[in-house]
Amino acid sequence: MRIPLDRESSTPLYQQIEQFIRREINSGSLPPETRLPATRQLAENLGVNRITVANAYAGLEAHGLVYTRLGSGTYVAHSLVGDQTDYDKSETIENWPSWQQKLWHSVYLPALQERNRLAAMVREPEDLLSFAGGVGAPELIPANDLRKALSDVLRRDNIDALGYGDRAGYPPLRATITHILADQGILTQADQILVTTGSQQALSLTASLLLRPGDCVLTESPTYPSMIDVFYSLGVKIMGIPVDDNGMQTEKLEEILTTEKPSLIYTTPTYQNPTGVTLSGPRRRQLLTLAAQYDIPILEDEFVGDLHYEGHSQPALKALDQGGRVIYSGTFSKMLMPGLRLGYLVADGPVYDRLVEWKNVTDLGTSDLIQRALEAYITVGRYQSHLHRAVRIYRQRRDIMLAALEKYMPLGCHWHTPHGGLFIWLQLPEGLSTNDLYPIALQEKVKYLAGAVCYPGKKSYRHMRLNFTMHPPQLIEEGVRRLAKATRKYMDTK
Amino acid sequence: MRIPLDRESSTPLYQQIEQFIRREINSGSLPPETRLPATRQLAENLGVNRITVANAYAGLEAHGLVYTRLGSGTYVAHSLVGDQTDYDKSETIENWPSWQQKLWHSVYLPALQERNRLAAMVREPEDLLSFAGGVGAPELIPANDLRKALSDVLRRDNIDALGYGDRAGYPPLRATITHILADQGILTQADQILVTTGSQQALSLTASLLLRPGDCVLTESPTYPSMIDVFYSLGVKIMGIPVDDNGMQTEKLEEILTTEKPSLIYTTPTYQNPTGVTLSGPRRRQLLTLAAQYDIPILEDEFVGDLHYEGHSQPALKALDQGGRVIYSGTFSKMLMPGLRLGYLVADGPVYDRLVEWKNVTDLGTSDLIQRALEAYITVGRYQSHLHRAVRIYRQRRDIMLAALEKYMPLGCHWHTPHGGLFIWLQLPEGLSTNDLYPIALQEKVKYLAGAVCYPGKKSYRHMRLNFTMHPPQLIEEGVRRLAKATRKYMDTK
Repeated sequence: MRIPLDRESSTPLYQQIEQFIRREINSGSLPPETRLPATRQLAENLGVNRITVANAYAGLEAHGLVYTRLGSGTYVAHSLVGDQTDYDKSETIENWPSWQQKLWHSVYLPALQERNRLAAMVREPEDLLSFAGGVGAPELIPANDLRKALSDVLRRDNIDALGYGDRAGYPPLRATITHILADQGILTQADQILVTTGSQQALSLTASLLLRPGDCVLTESPTYPSMIDVFYSLGVKIMGIPVDDNGMQTEKLEEILTTEKPSLIYTTPTYQNPTGVTLSGPRRRQLLTLAAQYDIPILEDEFVGDLHYEGHSQPALKALDQGGRVIYSGTFSKMLMPGLRLGYLVADGPVYDRLVEWKNVTDLGTSDLIQRALEAYITVGRYQSHLHRAVRIYRQRRDIMLAALEKYMPLGCHWHTPHGGLFIWLQLPEGLSTNDLYPIALQEKVKYLAGAVCYPGKKSYRHMRLNFTMHPPQLIEEGVRRLAKATRKYMDTK
Repeated sequence: MRIPLDRESSTPLYQQIEQFIRREINSGSLPPETRLPATRQLAENLGVNRITVANAYAGLEAHGLVYTRLGSGTYVAHSLVGDQTDYDKSETIENWPSWQQKLWHSVYLPALQERNRLAAMVREPEDLLSFAGGVGAPELIPANDLRKALSDVLRRDNIDALGYGDRAGYPPLRATITHILADQGILTQADQILVTTGSQQALSLTASLLLRPGDCVLTESPTYPSMIDVFYSLGVKIMGIPVDDNGMQTEKLEEILTTEKPSLIYTTPTYQNPTGVTLSGPRRRQLLTLAAQYDIPILEDEFVGDLHYEGHSQPALKALDQGGRVIYSGTFSKMLMPGLRLGYLVADGPVYDRLVEWKNVTDLGTSDLIQRALEAYITVGRYQSHLHRAVRIYRQRRDIMLAALEKYMPLGCHWHTPHGGLFIWLQLPEGLSTNDLYPIALQEKVKYLAGAVCYPGKKSYRHMRLNFTMHPPQLIEEGVRRLAKATRKYMDTK
């Protein structure tokens, strides 16, 4: 296989290899069941490290384009989508300018593109029950209160509410955020808060400020899929640290740190996305110690840190941070409403000013009106009572889903009881794939997040992420019944 | 001068040199009036191209850190700010982790940081009249209509308005945008529109998708300062094409294109920011021909393209584009209200899908609620009547400012009559600097945008940008009177 590599390019070699093979597969030049060259052999041909080829193959596997037969090699997978993907646009690709044609092949966002691919497989039925989402229950959204707050703010502030606003965010809202955080043990000040367009922007801003193409970043494996895309978009190398019941296996970190020099550790320590597990106290301390020792910033993603259902709760890493080592990201999307698109960063030291500038260069600021409306609505007391209500309802829904899984799912499926957050991470029996189950589940009118998109490197196809908060009790039970039926049908075909 | 250069770094060498010298100046290691080594000599010492050193010096000059004495060399400037800049935090910089210390020196956003520096010079008086802004008249903002629209939308759509919404933007709003554009001769479809958080995000998204560190981008010189920062944040090399009364001097483009291979041309062809000039018809055609011939995407920034006061109006480049060569950016910030933070991109071909994905990875989407509210308010008819009202009022204010400039400003100042947009670009007599005038103007309670921040390379200090739309007639006259008084005071000191 002759792959043209550009060693001057800022696109890492493994991505170039991955992109080339992906194109060949999508164009039909490499038909299904074609065996790819062994990693050792291809590495030799191309004059690259064997790890580089292995990384490329792992990326293709993430995309469902190839699969591995143990002890036999890597093979081109059967396309689940036939000609229905957006790749059939390639018929006319030659009509576009060359820079567009190049772009067509060079932008690779594995999680997003894989989700698009799965979504394109089967038309979604009307009465689909989805456990796939990443947000809470819609009926808890205080839409009327927000309407009143918006109206009050526009009457009170008139056109003052419709200008560009303060660069770091509406100051009274930043003050309120510090009060909400203080309640969670994070002591901070309004001039350490930067308001962002949801936590997604908080996370992507931080990553783009701190990372350059070719850098290395550490994440949990599995992790939040959209962050995998953020890291791919920046051309950085992702190293996944495995997760167990106590979160990221920080014991494995030190070994990596002696050989790699990562530029960032990204972590969701509490009610992790997608697994729901929480990093233990000793591991939190170990993580902070290693970050200090090896001089690596930590990006802490607390998207549901305060949705705590029972047991001992862990302090945020930011609360343990004594010297500006942790950049903390929070959001109002999960607890209040995703449509506000309001999140925030907490940072100390020079990086805070840089983040404010970076945000300003990116979009000049998040809507001041929306910030003022949230500020007019939210107080620590209101936030607390909203939180208590959500905790009560979501805990009940979790228990209902756990009971339904126990009742309906076939033997050999496993899951844990999450002590907070939104998700149950369910594992199918060995040899089964939630990607393969996906179209069958859609036929049964139930949907989940197929877990493979959550892995930055080597995948597991056995997992699915189920959001237990989105539906009322009777629909949770009905959805699990459908899921169990689809799983049995799928198992019968194996 | 021994400057440690990292030739493996993605930070271009000229930026590394610039950053090093900047740090030395800010720390006091290089005191004012120190002569920097000649570019040829330093280039030899460091083993780099002389242009590299010249670029570094030009960057320092942009920041006001050094100045050039004709035929004598480059000298460290007297700090205008003394110890009042944020650099006095450097006392405690050693307390932060090394990665933070590094960041302190490595992020360089010349326009933003220069504006912060000027802003820190003198405390702004209470009754300051500012001509510095980049938006229209606040009294034209339809705040009441927006309040009604928000309330109606929340009643109508309830929680549907508070979810994540469509990835490319609220579809009915995208349809409305196509109708508004059709009115301006740009034929497009809703599935070629991507709604963004203001045009700043539209521009920065496109730049970050298409550019990698070390790439080269062409802009007008002078140009929109925040785009200079966007390009710096991406580590790309900016080449400025001079502007005359007919816009970018496209004749000079071809010569550059034979030696450089730029990855993007960024242009504001109509009522350019900051000069107010418009690219002529022949030059528009030449620009498109060259972009096709050399396979370079064009990013067209039409931030006030329809604020047209008189004479022949030019079609947008996008309207002349026949094959997906132009990516067009528009906004509602100037015509309606900046606080909505709503802008949009128009693109054809594979780049459109990539931009949608890129936006999704960046922030998952702009507030759906705000999009629905704008859609509920705006129709082509309402947009048109808003536009007509703005044109009538702004044209009158332009004429009032022109008359006041004629009446009050000292001899030797020059300006043109802009036929649209928001800005007059005023030039002081030779040897004078709008940076030096700035603190005197603030004492006289008037403010402008000092023009040096608009130059990506070699600066002119003789210009200022005046926004004529923001104040009612009597305040425009009063502001120009103050400006003239400050200018006279300043000229007396020379």
